[in-house]
Amino acid sequence: MSVSRTAKIISGKIIADQIRSELIVEIEALRRKNVTPGLAVVLVGENPASQVYVRNKRKTCAELGLHSFDVDLPADVTERRLLASIDKLNRDPKVHGILVQMPLPKHLHEQKVLNAILPEKDVDGFHPVNAGKLLIGEPGFAPCTAAGCQELLLRSGYDPAGKHVVIVGRSNIVGKPLAALLMQKAAGANATVTVCHSRTRHLAALTRQADILVAAIGIPEFITGRMIKDKAVVIDVGINRIDDPTRASGTRLVGDVHFAQALKKARAITPVPGGVGLMTVIMLMRNTVSAAKQQTSR
Amino acid sequence: MSVSRTAKIISGKIIADQIRSELIVEIEALRRKNVTPGLAVVLVGENPASQVYVRNKRKTCAELGLHSFDVDLPADVTERRLLASIDKLNRDPKVHGILVQMPLPKHLHEQKVLNAILPEKDVDGFHPVNAGKLLIGEPGFAPCTAAGCQELLLRSGYDPAGKHVVIVGRSNIVGKPLAALLMQKAAGANATVTVCHSRTRHLAALTRQADILVAAIGIPEFITGRMIKDKAVVIDVGINRIDDPTRASGTRLVGDVHFAQALKKARAITPVPGGVGLMTVIMLMRNTVSAAKQQTSR
Repeated sequence: MSVSRTAKIISGKIIADQIRSELIVEIEALRRKNVTPGLAVVLVGENPASQVYVRNKRKTCAELGLHSFDVDLPADVTERRLLASIDKLNRDPKVHGILVQMPLPKHLHEQKVLNAILPEKDVDGFHPVNAGKLLIGEPGFAPCTAAGCQELLLRSGYDPAGKHVVIVGRSNIVGKPLAALLMQKAAGANATVTVCHSRTRHLAALTRQADILVAAIGIPEFITGRMIKDKAVVIDVGINRIDDPTRASGTRLVGDVHFAQALKKARAITPVPGGVGLMTVIMLMRNTVSAAKQQTSR
Repeated sequence: MSVSRTAKIISGKIIADQIRSELIVEIEALRRKNVTPGLAVVLVGENPASQVYVRNKRKTCAELGLHSFDVDLPADVTERRLLASIDKLNRDPKVHGILVQMPLPKHLHEQKVLNAILPEKDVDGFHPVNAGKLLIGEPGFAPCTAAGCQELLLRSGYDPAGKHVVIVGRSNIVGKPLAALLMQKAAGANATVTVCHSRTRHLAALTRQADILVAAIGIPEFITGRMIKDKAVVIDVGINRIDDPTRASGTRLVGDVHFAQALKKARAITPVPGGVGLMTVIMLMRNTVSAAKQQTSR
């Protein structure tokens, strides 16, 4: 008789709510000092996915009592005008954090735009100064999704210290910053880190060694059960919409991990939706509150 | 009858000389435009090891026809005065590169001093902006020893693309920047990278998987033969002085790899001395020449 094991579900909802409760206390403390953390969310054009993300960020600001500065620019905005908007936000003392929603229309140079944000207001953690501080191990802003993965691990009791973390995917948004974050000689880190990607040979042989496996490659259900070590902790960063004729919508969301197969192998796993995806916005709020504290405590 | 294999020796001398020859051509081309690359080497105090390193850097400048700006400050220099010196060098158009020899006396904050160097003159690659560009994959200055390891691999015909590189050590000078360098989606990189360190469990099981093994942990002969995969390429970054009563000096230099044991397992290996150690200074010269080109081509 086979015993069917089922992994523990790591709820992004529960953990994001914990952080939200902690932030409410911090925001209240700032308010008593007449400080309201302010976040500028810059949206260029009308990419439907970007509109959803931006609306969600602005809504969460409102719920937490943060000032949301909405900057909506047309898809054909010149780089000069976009940079001028950022410069204005850089100089506005009420704006503690600035986020430019990616991707930008093709005629705009994304890294140049990110570089224009003051590092101390770069709550998305994409400015080279913040990426560098992350790698060096100096305090700064870590990209929100990567920081969210670390929080999910720590708050579920899976400290990466001494563990072998295998990250599949090397984006600037998740894979590389998460690797930098977890390899540091620091509390909540101290992991042995392997970064795999599209060019990795014998991928399954590597993923099967992971005590903690992070899937951030953007391919639906790419990580199958046989790629997961028995009792590994699996963090699924992917959010992919695939066809599903059994649903009324005709589609459903899946991660980069084959969830049903992973359930039978892993010790714990983040679901999609309801896992990492819920962490990104709350980490953005946390970075904004930190920025407000730093900028007003001088 | 056992066949005793012997690894190919990767000569830092030969490869550094190749790069030196290439640089001489570039420096000559710059001279025809009335540009002489200038490097300021700042030495604080009288640490004997630092004095040796600084002398070597200044001597190499002279040999290549670079301007060497010598700034020697007393061990008790104030941070303010040191920062004022750096500021002066930042503003001097004849100085294209600035290097502050580490370590600094305890009363000086090293990262604060490094942060004061203009990123475009930071030829040591230790400013957060350059560390961040390295992680993001943007052009910038990579730390010289890490860049030297990559050059040794590429110029010996061991392209890391698709290979599993295991790096033992996570310093800001070698381990972390080399990991960032080799995991990029870029020519000369594209490796699968694992970073191990003092907190790694089952270290030998990981090092034995390395197609390319980099030892940068600072412990004499730490990597033994049994930790090396058959036919791996071994890059030994360590330079350790140990007792040796058979030598007239009573000591000798060894790397972080047990060389005699590695010779029998590896496909190729860098010796100590004569390997990575010879690359650092020439990569510094290359960064300085690049800096001069960038600063004078505007």
